[in-house]
Amino acid sequence: MTLVPIAGLIDGRLDPRDRGVAYGDGVFETMRWTGGRIPLLQWHLARLAGGVGRLGIRLPDLSGLEAAIADATPVAGDAVVRLVVTRGVGPRGYAPPRDALATAFALIEPWLPRRTADPEGLVLRWCQLRLAPQPALAGIKHLNRLEQVLARAEWDDPTIDEGLLCDPSGHVVCATAANLFAVIDGRLVTPDVSRVGVAGVARAIVRDALDVEVRSLPSAELDRATEVFLTNAVRGVMRVARIDARRFAPGPVARAAAEALARNGLVGEAVR
Amino acid sequence: MTLVPIAGLIDGRLDPRDRGVAYGDGVFETMRWTGGRIPLLQWHLARLAGGVGRLGIRLPDLSGLEAAIADATPVAGDAVVRLVVTRGVGPRGYAPPRDALATAFALIEPWLPRRTADPEGLVLRWCQLRLAPQPALAGIKHLNRLEQVLARAEWDDPTIDEGLLCDPSGHVVCATAANLFAVIDGRLVTPDVSRVGVAGVARAIVRDALDVEVRSLPSAELDRATEVFLTNAVRGVMRVARIDARRFAPGPVARAAAEALARNGLVGEAVR
Repeated sequence: MTLVPIAGLIDGRLDPRDRGVAYGDGVFETMRWTGGRIPLLQWHLARLAGGVGRLGIRLPDLSGLEAAIADATPVAGDAVVRLVVTRGVGPRGYAPPRDALATAFALIEPWLPRRTADPEGLVLRWCQLRLAPQPALAGIKHLNRLEQVLARAEWDDPTIDEGLLCDPSGHVVCATAANLFAVIDGRLVTPDVSRVGVAGVARAIVRDALDVEVRSLPSAELDRATEVFLTNAVRGVMRVARIDARRFAPGPVARAAAEALARNGLVGEAVR
Repeated sequence: MTLVPIAGLIDGRLDPRDRGVAYGDGVFETMRWTGGRIPLLQWHLARLAGGVGRLGIRLPDLSGLEAAIADATPVAGDAVVRLVVTRGVGPRGYAPPRDALATAFALIEPWLPRRTADPEGLVLRWCQLRLAPQPALAGIKHLNRLEQVLARAEWDDPTIDEGLLCDPSGHVVCATAANLFAVIDGRLVTPDVSRVGVAGVARAIVRDALDVEVRSLPSAELDRATEVFLTNAVRGVMRVARIDARRFAPGPVARAAAEALARNGLVGEAVR
């Protein structure tokens, strides 16, 4: 991984008093670098600004981000950029200091196409862990991610690509690192994330482009879905071939979603 | 603050790839240093071991902790020691690497007695934020603390000492940085933390010493409490003088709890 320091690091290292490590007091964005730029940068920056606004974190100057990444990365190669913004260093105690200066840095690594075990698309499992609804944090891509860590630790079978997560009522929310879409009764549906889950950038673009119903989605409804796909801002649209034993055939809606992302500059996995 | 590096730091700084800052993937203990030692150390280490065990983090060697703190701290002075253990550096992605080496460090600052605005004890308010029940993380003193940060950000009136937090059902769980006890109908009660909240070290000692009922506690029941007090491992027993307008008189149970902590070496705030 290549580090691009932006604010608050010293010699490329983090102060151990940083509230990012003390409390997970910050946000992040995981972004695709391609063709010498971050095609979805404006979407990422808008979500980041929303997140730091809700947490009361002062947004650092990120205007030089793409230039700094270009300096650190071969322009020709595709990369994944993880941008982290924390509240910065503060005294001990939960009370957020008003005058803290945010810490910001990016970590860059090469982007590689996902190699799925099933050529038709992703293979998914159901995670046992239930995501806890917390409206005060829902939608924000914050640094409190132990639920995702525990969910992802539930399996290490390399033939399983992702895990689906429900809330305590058995409504499906998302995968560990992607949003979920399904075509049910002829309508494209994505779970509501106003109480739990992350409001993904790719999800927002698909919502802008297509007619999407945003609602609570009981997990059993996926049984009668005709198409299921995941989205994130690094891999774009990822067609789901299977959830456990249930198979889903390729369809036109995932292709339309992938085209919407491609129009915004994000060419993801091949979607047949 | 004085830093005591234990494992994984380089020149006293944290690797930006550390999963502590990436995901809040770790645990901490806030401990009182007094008389040249941490009197509750064995309790803290037991809880820490439980937390890292549930998260699958490899516990680093902490056998030299008190000696390292003694080297860094004037023996005569009282101090607060914040011990942080993270899963360490790993590749991008939620999947916890099996071979990660934990990062560990302590931050030390002087301990000062709390100056409360009300000489009778703490003044508390009710926080608006509701804690989200998550059984997979309940009890653990993990680094995902944005709920506490947001709750503590609800007030900056210096005459208010702490805030009480409820779960979504209106059951009181704890204060932002302390556990709660109340004497209700002649019985000492503390909220159950098996679904939400932190299982405090001072709380465990009080439970060992006194007859304590552990149960769900509807917030309205505090209206008829005859004594209310908070506990943590830095300040011991903290008598509550007021919750909003409701006053509580001093009583014998808080004193008995303070004596139980004193027998274990933790002399906290004065409890009349």
